[in-house]
Amino acid sequence: MVAAVAKGDATCEDIARACLERVAARERVVHAWAHINPDAIIAEARRLDAASTRGPLHGVPIGVKDVIDTYDMPTQMGSPIYRGYRPAADASCVALLRGAGALIFGKTVTCEFAGVTAGDTTNPHDASRTPGGSSSGSAAAVADYMVPLAFGTQTGGSIQRPSSFCGVVGYKPSFGLINTAGLKPAAVSLDTLGLIVRSLEDIALAMRALTNESDIAWLPKETRLRIGLCRTYLWDTAEEATQQALSDAAERLRSRGDKVEDFSLPESFRELSTTREVINDYERARAMAHEWQHARNSISEGLAKSITRGFATPAARYIDALVRVDECRRELAPIFERYDLLLAPTVTGEAPLGLAYTGHHGFQSIWTQLRVPTVSLPTYQGPNGLPVGVQLVGRDHGDAQLIAMARLLFEFLGKGPSVRTNS
Amino acid sequence: MVAAVAKGDATCEDIARACLERVAARERVVHAWAHINPDAIIAEARRLDAASTRGPLHGVPIGVKDVIDTYDMPTQMGSPIYRGYRPAADASCVALLRGAGALIFGKTVTCEFAGVTAGDTTNPHDASRTPGGSSSGSAAAVADYMVPLAFGTQTGGSIQRPSSFCGVVGYKPSFGLINTAGLKPAAVSLDTLGLIVRSLEDIALAMRALTNESDIAWLPKETRLRIGLCRTYLWDTAEEATQQALSDAAERLRSRGDKVEDFSLPESFRELSTTREVINDYERARAMAHEWQHARNSISEGLAKSITRGFATPAARYIDALVRVDECRRELAPIFERYDLLLAPTVTGEAPLGLAYTGHHGFQSIWTQLRVPTVSLPTYQGPNGLPVGVQLVGRDHGDAQLIAMARLLFEFLGKGPSVRTNS
Repeated sequence: MVAAVAKGDATCEDIARACLERVAARERVVHAWAHINPDAIIAEARRLDAASTRGPLHGVPIGVKDVIDTYDMPTQMGSPIYRGYRPAADASCVALLRGAGALIFGKTVTCEFAGVTAGDTTNPHDASRTPGGSSSGSAAAVADYMVPLAFGTQTGGSIQRPSSFCGVVGYKPSFGLINTAGLKPAAVSLDTLGLIVRSLEDIALAMRALTNESDIAWLPKETRLRIGLCRTYLWDTAEEATQQALSDAAERLRSRGDKVEDFSLPESFRELSTTREVINDYERARAMAHEWQHARNSISEGLAKSITRGFATPAARYIDALVRVDECRRELAPIFERYDLLLAPTVTGEAPLGLAYTGHHGFQSIWTQLRVPTVSLPTYQGPNGLPVGVQLVGRDHGDAQLIAMARLLFEFLGKGPSVRTNS
Repeated sequence: MVAAVAKGDATCEDIARACLERVAARERVVHAWAHINPDAIIAEARRLDAASTRGPLHGVPIGVKDVIDTYDMPTQMGSPIYRGYRPAADASCVALLRGAGALIFGKTVTCEFAGVTAGDTTNPHDASRTPGGSSSGSAAAVADYMVPLAFGTQTGGSIQRPSSFCGVVGYKPSFGLINTAGLKPAAVSLDTLGLIVRSLEDIALAMRALTNESDIAWLPKETRLRIGLCRTYLWDTAEEATQQALSDAAERLRSRGDKVEDFSLPESFRELSTTREVINDYERARAMAHEWQHARNSISEGLAKSITRGFATPAARYIDALVRVDECRRELAPIFERYDLLLAPTVTGEAPLGLAYTGHHGFQSIWTQLRVPTVSLPTYQGPNGLPVGVQLVGRDHGDAQLIAMARLLFEFLGKGPSVRTNS
């Protein structure tokens, strides 16, 4: 798109209209959008076509998860409490892409406050199945070719789970790398902004605008990597589809000449399942203190339980969880002297049936807590024809290297099933 | 106050009126408040007096730095951009104290977006001098007996510098311990919410409501501590007042029987002066991206320079700064096996003359970056009769222990000059 606009092969309006056509054809089934205004999009596209300067993302339509502030659209958090709410300013990430010429296309459906209570988005591959949560609309909109790029957030597994279920590329950066100003906090020590896309090059383009990262060195095909095959302590909870997705990727990478070695996380890392719940409940309760006081009846039962647990948690238990996670973080760091990346499951399997349950965050929240960057690649097709991802894990703040390695491996492994582009 | 209200010796309205009298007498000189509405305060005090339940902070008046959201008062950030702005919800810390029965008294003056461009607050000890920044109004209001407790934030030295200049107790918790939801971000990886008070017991009371910390074990007088006397690599920038404040405290603690040993930070810690600027500029630029696009002319020259530097910083330079700080953090941790706490300067000296320059953050931002808790105690009086603080530094997340040790030492060391309570 960037190239087409730059060369004059397409206008921003052409691109916007193509995306809007796809939305018109599919939104009745997919329900990816919490807010979308076609007239405003066309007006903005025309403004971009008429602009005297061109940004590096000129005219590229962007979906924004609806827990991220936008000054010209409502930000409703998937909650009746914020129906029609309009923030005063764009979140940092929105303003930065807007400043690079991107077209802020609309707000994507989120689970309630980026938690587990689902919206009405369906999986673009099969409308009877969940798209995953909480970045449900972002993953569905990108998978369904409505936009090429959308912002997601991950506090447990809210970027990578829907990315795997919808068959797109998810990128959870190192903690804090994409600035969180203007994001509604869920659990502030875990909340990570990231991207959902269909290609690794799109991540590089966006990260340049977001972080001034201009040094992503794409790797020649001949590059061979040292890969730790990390099934994790949750391996037994994975369905056959995920186990096969991982074995398939490992075998093919071995055949390519990569050095793939079994790697087990230390025993103490099992605690990360407990610490995630303690930290998430404790921080969520405090982040939601105002809503809890003023609108308790508008909070879902699931979230209310989490908040209640969080308020009952003694400070010492919370601090102990933080300290344990920090110890794991320190233990993980030297692993990346042996391996360029870890290869791990993204999620238990294909998207489950139904819309209420968005899947479990176990395989994702290990890495969210450890704060290291992950990329989920949709390389595999499960028994129901649905995509299954594998997760690449890089060292803390080794994002540029991880993105380059992910592109190399994705080109080789290829991708699983696509959504048919005609409805 | 809590005891008086609980016993029926005073009503919430009595307390509110006493504080308002002090404001009426002194605010013309001190300018601590960005927003204060006496009628609303009295109405709220009466509501609290009539309430059927009593919170642990029932009726205690609280000042709130004006970068912290309040749903019933404007939040103006010390910037014309946010004149009259009213957020939709209370920040976490405000809602939590409100929920504990506290009386949210008003918004205190902040430097522009918690940076360095000063408001019009004066030092309560000497109106020709700065109160320090950026939590200027919070420190001045507490020092001047207008309220017993106020929220401050520290990204460099914005809690401890004004606390020292105004002669009150500053508490910067471990990073993240007071939830930052609803705080306008300055530099998100450094922004730390904290308290400005006149006694350590008040910190314990507030932290119980904020974090569920109920285990602060006050120490018997006979307790002897292992103290590392940490002049830091900035020692030569300290004025005689600060050097004497530290020597005086060290000698008196030795005489008390504490084991006070010289302790030097490793050489590599000198880099913390550079990393602070890189991280602050980089993150500030991104947090302010919206304002930069829409209201650049309303941003002060100083902040504009910081934002410009931040946008020019390559991602690699920012990441390198983060990694170096993290290395220092890991090197610091084992120090606290040898020492119960470190004793360090708070700030270079007495409050400087004039209101434009709020002082340097060097002595404070070492610890802000290291994320460890600090308490500044106003134990000393400088050559101009102004207070000079000393800083106690605890281990990461050892907040409860640090507060208890600080109380023990403050009782022994006593405090420096007080603001006269009659105007």
